[in-house]
Amino acid sequence: MTSIDDFWAVIPAGGSGTRLWPLSRRSSPKFLHDLTGTGQSLLRATWERLVPLVEDRVLVVTGAAHEDAVRGQLPMLRRDDVVAEPLPRDSMPAIGLAAAILERRDPGAILGAFHADHVISDLDAFRAAVAEAIAVARTGDLVTIGIEPTHPATGFGYIKLGDRLDVPGAPSAHRVDVFVEKPDAATAESYVRSGEYRWNAGMFVVGATTLLELLAETHPELAANLRIIASDPRRLHDLWPSLSKIAIDHAVAEPAAAAGRVAVVPASFGWNDIGDFSSLAEVLDQAHGTPTLRVITGVDDVVSIDSSGLVAADSGRAVAIVGLDDVIVIDTADALLVTTKERAQDVKKVVDELQQRGRSDLT
Amino acid sequence: MTSIDDFWAVIPAGGSGTRLWPLSRRSSPKFLHDLTGTGQSLLRATWERLVPLVEDRVLVVTGAAHEDAVRGQLPMLRRDDVVAEPLPRDSMPAIGLAAAILERRDPGAILGAFHADHVISDLDAFRAAVAEAIAVARTGDLVTIGIEPTHPATGFGYIKLGDRLDVPGAPSAHRVDVFVEKPDAATAESYVRSGEYRWNAGMFVVGATTLLELLAETHPELAANLRIIASDPRRLHDLWPSLSKIAIDHAVAEPAAAAGRVAVVPASFGWNDIGDFSSLAEVLDQAHGTPTLRVITGVDDVVSIDSSGLVAADSGRAVAIVGLDDVIVIDTADALLVTTKERAQDVKKVVDELQQRGRSDLT
Repeated sequence: MTSIDDFWAVIPAGGSGTRLWPLSRRSSPKFLHDLTGTGQSLLRATWERLVPLVEDRVLVVTGAAHEDAVRGQLPMLRRDDVVAEPLPRDSMPAIGLAAAILERRDPGAILGAFHADHVISDLDAFRAAVAEAIAVARTGDLVTIGIEPTHPATGFGYIKLGDRLDVPGAPSAHRVDVFVEKPDAATAESYVRSGEYRWNAGMFVVGATTLLELLAETHPELAANLRIIASDPRRLHDLWPSLSKIAIDHAVAEPAAAAGRVAVVPASFGWNDIGDFSSLAEVLDQAHGTPTLRVITGVDDVVSIDSSGLVAADSGRAVAIVGLDDVIVIDTADALLVTTKERAQDVKKVVDELQQRGRSDLT
Repeated sequence: MTSIDDFWAVIPAGGSGTRLWPLSRRSSPKFLHDLTGTGQSLLRATWERLVPLVEDRVLVVTGAAHEDAVRGQLPMLRRDDVVAEPLPRDSMPAIGLAAAILERRDPGAILGAFHADHVISDLDAFRAAVAEAIAVARTGDLVTIGIEPTHPATGFGYIKLGDRLDVPGAPSAHRVDVFVEKPDAATAESYVRSGEYRWNAGMFVVGATTLLELLAETHPELAANLRIIASDPRRLHDLWPSLSKIAIDHAVAEPAAAAGRVAVVPASFGWNDIGDFSSLAEVLDQAHGTPTLRVITGVDDVVSIDSSGLVAADSGRAVAIVGLDDVIVIDTADALLVTTKERAQDVKKVVDELQQRGRSDLT
């Protein structure tokens, strides 16, 4: 596959999350970490995955606090390829500003927005899906990539497939019937059984101008302000704080789907958003086989007696685990987490509690 | 209860054990620690428990490596009240040397040997049992205190009661029929059901000379060498390494029981040898009621979400536990243990493994 001249990658590198605490912190969110032991951070792996499609046409949108770390991990990016948000404003302002910048650089630009902290295992399948999405985006639709569910997950939104489209170069594409929120277990089960639903992985491919026009239909002031900032970057600091904090799904994708203007390319390429330590364990097990106890870091410091699960021994201390199955032990210099795969989602409660206690130094 | 002029307390303070790792180490065994949160180490609590019976008639026998720590915790002891073993030689040489020293100080001395690392909750009942044991010891018997079992433990030896004795001042005393080794679960169950068995807590009350005479019957050279050392402490370093490494149970108590010369005072005063973290949890729960999660140290550093068990946060780091029941988390400056109450006995395997890896700095 060769690169596509008017296709640009937009990488929103934000969203600290709290369910990978204490590895991931506000000061050092998960996209900066090599969680999967590949030797690359998730951000760097995202860039590597996209570069065959876009060569040097990459924009990373990140928080001002992480700009230096992003530039450090991606030293090939030019000055203008990293956009630093003064404050977090969710995905719509981030991707919308990228679109406004890109339509000035290249009036026909198609952008593909891909989060900096997802893991994808089959790169050929990923790039083939993106190529189909680009073909559909050229027809003026907003296009998403819908991941074939491998289990009835309750942690993701779902996309309901509509009619098959007839776009040359996009044989798999369908109209999107509707985006649905994270379902309960029974609903998720019925979605997966029906075969008509795909996971919403937050991947969007769309003409830069198309995206801003769709946004202007629902949030005209936001679209206008993003274009003002793109035309005069000195306005970033005064305008940004006033922008609505809203996700691209709510601002654009859902209303556009209701108007019949969203397409989906169904795909299955081994996708994981590493939402928590249980997801991380799953990714690692798929890549390397299921061991008794998976050690992310510090393997020489770990003693395991009859235990299974996931361990990070990041503090240099000895970590001994005796007789626990599916346990998660994350040992860092200033904080220790002990939980189970089953309860991995509740790690966010620890972060809430620490913040309530005034221990934001630890979060 | 007033003190008894010819009664001496002997406190063997040895036996590092490995099942309370990483709190207890060879360099700092459990008797030096305030494991139960009373503000006193187990050694100090043992001394406090005995002092009403013996005033200043106390001998502590400990390893040379721990002599300074013992003197630091018991500053009232005189120079000659602490005996430092050059090498660990198990309980018979330790208690036997104490007996040899005491018979020189006080030819009619009765000694009571009580481990430095046990917990007793009902002190009046304890002292009453000791008084009975002293009365029987004056008749020339070796006397043990037999703890009424509260459950069919498989971690202790048992004492089978023989006929009731008729000794003034010792209405509860029985002859010992036989000492039995740690039983399997079914045997333990039958012992407890029968009502004829007591736990062997390793508490012995006996005339100093009687003990050495009993020892001389089975191990004459050992008895002779102990008396040589007592008469000339300068011989300690050359003779000690050659002494047999043997427990008082095997060297004296079992053979003497077979000869009908051992008595037992049955008692129930809330005894626990804190053999592992599960025992420690039990002691703490009995003293303070069962909490959701018991925190031994560092309560301000612990965040518990839906968890129960035992935690020590000894490193100053935050310790977060999410969704684990009956978990044990022991966090120290250089080592972390995560296990369960059920598997607490297997902590010794961690210590074995660390030693095999050459990490004796951690054990």
